[in-house]
Amino acid sequence: MTTNTKIVSPLTDQRMRALAGSLQLGNSEHAEVYLDSNATVKPFESVVEAVVDIMRASWGNPSSGHFAGLAARHVLERAREAVAKLLVGVDPDDVILTSGGTESCNTVLASASADATVIISAVEHPANSVPAELAATRGANLIVVPVDANGLTDPEAFRRAVVKTRTSKLYVSVQWASGETGVIQPIGEIASAVHESRPDALLHVDAAQAVGRIPTPVPATTGLTAFSFSGHKLHGPQGIGVLAYSGRKNIPSMALIAGGGQERNRRSGTQNVSGAAGLAAALEERAKRFDEAVESMGRLRDAFESRVTELTPNATVNGINAPRTRNTSNICFRGTDGISLVAKLDALGIRCSQGSACSSGHPAPSHVLHAMGISEEDAYSSLRFSFSVLNSMEDVETSLDTIEHVLNSS
Amino acid sequence: MTTNTKIVSPLTDQRMRALAGSLQLGNSEHAEVYLDSNATVKPFESVVEAVVDIMRASWGNPSSGHFAGLAARHVLERAREAVAKLLVGVDPDDVILTSGGTESCNTVLASASADATVIISAVEHPANSVPAELAATRGANLIVVPVDANGLTDPEAFRRAVVKTRTSKLYVSVQWASGETGVIQPIGEIASAVHESRPDALLHVDAAQAVGRIPTPVPATTGLTAFSFSGHKLHGPQGIGVLAYSGRKNIPSMALIAGGGQERNRRSGTQNVSGAAGLAAALEERAKRFDEAVESMGRLRDAFESRVTELTPNATVNGINAPRTRNTSNICFRGTDGISLVAKLDALGIRCSQGSACSSGHPAPSHVLHAMGISEEDAYSSLRFSFSVLNSMEDVETSLDTIEHVLNSS
Repeated sequence: MTTNTKIVSPLTDQRMRALAGSLQLGNSEHAEVYLDSNATVKPFESVVEAVVDIMRASWGNPSSGHFAGLAARHVLERAREAVAKLLVGVDPDDVILTSGGTESCNTVLASASADATVIISAVEHPANSVPAELAATRGANLIVVPVDANGLTDPEAFRRAVVKTRTSKLYVSVQWASGETGVIQPIGEIASAVHESRPDALLHVDAAQAVGRIPTPVPATTGLTAFSFSGHKLHGPQGIGVLAYSGRKNIPSMALIAGGGQERNRRSGTQNVSGAAGLAAALEERAKRFDEAVESMGRLRDAFESRVTELTPNATVNGINAPRTRNTSNICFRGTDGISLVAKLDALGIRCSQGSACSSGHPAPSHVLHAMGISEEDAYSSLRFSFSVLNSMEDVETSLDTIEHVLNSS
Repeated sequence: MTTNTKIVSPLTDQRMRALAGSLQLGNSEHAEVYLDSNATVKPFESVVEAVVDIMRASWGNPSSGHFAGLAARHVLERAREAVAKLLVGVDPDDVILTSGGTESCNTVLASASADATVIISAVEHPANSVPAELAATRGANLIVVPVDANGLTDPEAFRRAVVKTRTSKLYVSVQWASGETGVIQPIGEIASAVHESRPDALLHVDAAQAVGRIPTPVPATTGLTAFSFSGHKLHGPQGIGVLAYSGRKNIPSMALIAGGGQERNRRSGTQNVSGAAGLAAALEERAKRFDEAVESMGRLRDAFESRVTELTPNATVNGINAPRTRNTSNICFRGTDGISLVAKLDALGIRCSQGSACSSGHPAPSHVLHAMGISEEDAYSSLRFSFSVLNSMEDVETSLDTIEHVLNSS
């Protein structure tokens, strides 16, 4: 067992090592098809090179007054500008570099206490829902807005909850797109509903699965909106993320990590300069070929989805009637043990998952599917397949052949 | 001006760019000598290669149940084991990977509130003193233990403060070695003094400037001790740090960042796997050649120190009568404007600093030197030179020649 005790794999790590023979991805005895891009995805070679270049040439501390600090600050500036290319309308000066999406989400809700109301949706990632629950333990009023059978929230439900709120502080924290189903929330309408009646509210958008996958203009309200995402889901490096603000010039100071006062006193600690360079490279690449990337992922996902439902008449697509990110497919193989199916596919080189990676060790069924009214049994039978621009039509075919083989031999 | 507004450089960034011609370190018109290793230091080539290898081969999400997750978990395990090679006595299972030393420090004090007493020394880094001050704003009782003219605390002063403490929770948070002066606190004696009278106290040791520079065995007490440090001061990558515990098996759950429950629920967010690989490479390299590394840095520092004080009769070494890390020299050039001296040396390729990088934009004199009873004028005249194993005797000579030139021409 690894030191990360939360992983409960149906195959032990030891057995997986034996199966794979090597710990390098791509060295297993089977064709490898990675269809778990919503968990993380292979860094682009341009990203690897950007990281290496900076580690060799601009490794200074951005807070140093001397030239080595200047060179490092230049890298951070470029990363902030790259964020604004995808999060359209954000001022690079309002981009804070963090260690990842989870830290960004925690930063937003850290100041929510007894004088605050926190409104979230029922389908949030734990990075967002757990800090909201912690705020409730500090005395904040927590309201959870439900989703319908398609996984969608109703902006009017946010409006009603906001109008009823009597606390001096109000946080509304909602996922733009679901990592599990791909379902896209109507963020523009939610922003209008929130800021129309409470212009002082802080709207936080967990954009981890949205940035680079759907157009992400900042909402057209003058209320303060914050956005969280991480680099590694966009072929950037792990360990670097973003917390960006839009809508108002005076951003309240809300540091989760205090100390030397980096990032304009909003996130202390020496910045991850090479990570920022990798993030910039990843975001610039996606911004340059955004339509092509989305189209490429969508073509593969659509082909996969239509053929997997042909292949297995029991299969249905969760969230199919909602707008979805074009790389994600959450399939219910009715009557099949999903955990076992993931493990069998893994042994044959197909990497997919049940729910989010962060929940993959939990024995409970997906809270996202549960919130959509899907039965516990169907949730246990559901698998997530998520594509990236590094996948090919051959990957789709190999994975379909393997799924067919596994379903027929069980 | 950069987006990092806290930098107040005597040379504008624009002017520095013009002087340097290029943003790549090593491309300036002068010989470049980097003597600011306590701010950050160039990653080892073996570290760069470890990062690249993992970004290409084991880029999975450690929380994924499938094989890509396993490969990534293996990398994290190796990093935890590498930590235990330098922090002797720590169990790899009690090593939590964070984004850096500042996050680690903040994690320890995040739970200190009105029912707590926090004891720190007068010479802490802001990563430690600012969270302590924030704890005080939440109602915690804050006690600051002074240092003597040599920069040393008295373990008996900790004992007296601990004995007087009446709150149910007690945190003692103290720096092992100073980044500014190199002065080493008697951590073993402090640990005994604290845990003898309050075995339930949490002792936190900010080991950022100690690990890899002095022997760092964990204190021989059964009380809980936490250690913070970051990779980038040891030729590892930026964006990866450590929070490790020793002395007790049941570590309290103290997450600053909550969510998916990674790092045994003590630090949520997808781990920085390539950063962990780089950290492991850096720590393993230092552990393998520890004596040689310390001796090499010490030889250069000693040569520099004895010759700079010969060169300029007004120069004295701050903290010279205390045990010091062998790579650090804090020199008072009495009667000289230190800010201007740093800038002039920078323009000629010598990178050094006044105080810590995190404070380098602050117009105030060093709080560390102030706590030692050094006058404001002398603090403003003091510069820090910090060496690494990548420096050579030629660097010492070049920097001395340049210092002589600048002092004689002003």
